[in-house]
Amino acid sequence: MGAPDVQLPGVGPEAGEEPLFDPTLLTALDWTPVKYMKNGVTSANPGQGLLVRPLCKADYDRGFLQLLAQLTKVGDISREKFEERFDTMRRCGGHYYVTVIEDLTCGKIIASATLACELKFIRDCAKRGRLEDVVVSDEYRGRQLGKLIVTTINLLAKKAGCYKLGLDCKDEMKAFYSSLGYVSEKGNDNTMIIRF
Amino acid sequence: MGAPDVQLPGVGPEAGEEPLFDPTLLTALDWTPVKYMKNGVTSANPGQGLLVRPLCKADYDRGFLQLLAQLTKVGDISREKFEERFDTMRRCGGHYYVTVIEDLTCGKIIASATLACELKFIRDCAKRGRLEDVVVSDEYRGRQLGKLIVTTINLLAKKAGCYKLGLDCKDEMKAFYSSLGYVSEKGNDNTMIIRF
Ligand SMILES: CC(C)(COP(=O)(O)OP(=O)(O)OC[C@H]1O[C@@H](n2cnc3c(N)ncnc32)[C@H](O)[C@@H]1OP(=O)(O)O)[C@@H](O)C(=O)NCCC(=O)NCCS
Ligand SMILES: CC(C)(COP(=O)(O)OP(=O)(O)OC[C@H]1O[C@@H](n2cnc3c(N)ncnc32)[C@H](O)[C@@H]1OP(=O)(O)O)[C@@H](O)C(=O)NCCC(=O)NCCS
Repeated sequence: MGAPDVQLPGVGPEAGEEPLFDPTLLTALDWTPVKYMKNGVTSANPGQGLLVRPLCKADYDRGFLQLLAQLTKVGDISREKFEERFDTMRRCGGHYYVTVIEDLTCGKIIASATLACELKFIRDCAKRGRLEDVVVSDEYRGRQLGKLIVTTINLLAKKAGCYKLGLDCKDEMKAFYSSLGYVSEKGNDNTMIIRF
Repeated sequence: MGAPDVQLPGVGPEAGEEPLFDPTLLTALDWTPVKYMKNGVTSANPGQGLLVRPLCKADYDRGFLQLLAQLTKVGDISREKFEERFDTMRRCGGHYYVTVIEDLTCGKIIASATLACELKFIRDCAKRGRLEDVVVSDEYRGRQLGKLIVTTINLLAKKAGCYKLGLDCKDEMKAFYSSLGYVSEKGNDNTMIIRF
């Protein structure tokens, strides 16, 4: 198969490696304001053998869904269903930034977090970001990768033009997110739900 | 201008009246499980002179943005910017359900609420709904319209296939949303944010 005429930067010719969003967004993030990462770790410099990048379809075979299953119920998603969901997200440009860390030595996805954006009319047609589905694979925890992937999303949200980035979390996770810049606004920090 | 060949049900030929989403979704909602509305009020029967329907572009001239300004900062949004945002939302089918109540006697938008959906991979490629930007115009408050518009979104979220519908709110709004079926899950009811 020949290389296509038009190619996104940094993307191989195989369709399965096409990124969900422009990968240069990640490499161009400015990490200078971030003071808490040890050893100069950033999204462009995540550590030996690691790569921070957008999700691609080939991650179906790199354990992406098995990783998500460490976070919550995932179910038995066929390749077709996964690719269809990926395509829908990709078509909705500027909405979905599913970001992963790959361990290149074993070809596995070992961490993931999503920036999901919502367009609004309020605040001069603002964009609101949400941090969703944060997970680091169990054997890789305690090595700053949680901080790395969440901070990557924080910087990305700012770059993508969000006026605000939010998350919902359990009590025991508040300390973790506080350490990464998230704030509970007193009197305005409730989340309520209906389950169907 | 002649009538177009293809027309959504219930929609006039004027481009400005094209709905953001299929209006039959609203008329087809099943209100039988809802017990708290007085006088048989539903989205299909909102009361004399009132109409519950999807947002359309012509609502720019019916005070839609002035209504949102009762909720929060809106800013000076030009018609072009409004229509561009509307078109982007519409293209992202299945994501944005901005629902309004029009007072037909004066041609004004007097209430609005949005169902914003996020697509996921978890839970068998689930769809998560969020209730956003709920507002009833001040002269119309205390007449069940808040209950009506929120319940409309609740039923719509279920119909649109959301596995869960959430909202973030202030302490003083918890009682209102509790009365409409929303629950705080103990230990998992925190929302945290970063503002940029
Ligand atoms: C939460 C999670 C993403 C953290 O990943 P990690 O790579 O282990 O985190 P890091 O190594 O970057 O840890 C950063 C700091 O947060 C702390 N931390 C890690 N997990 C924590 C938790 N569950 N609760 C509170 N603090 C936590 C660490 O102790 C560390 O503190 P330090 O900097 O003072 O040493 C990971 O444990 C995970 O995937 N858990 C299961 C899924 C989950 O709960 N996701 C979050 C849903 S809201
Ligand atoms: C909140 C709001 C949408 C309610 O609309 P409304 O049409 O006045 O509400 P309803 O007439 O349907 O009232 C339903 C019930 O909720 C109660 N209620 C109304 N506003 C309330 C508030 N701010 N806090 C607590 N309870 C409230 C009413 O007393 C009524 O109770 P009842 O059924 O026991 O009589 C409206 O006041 C509003 O637009 N406020 C400004 C914007 C805002 O705060 N939006 C919500 C952001 S989370």
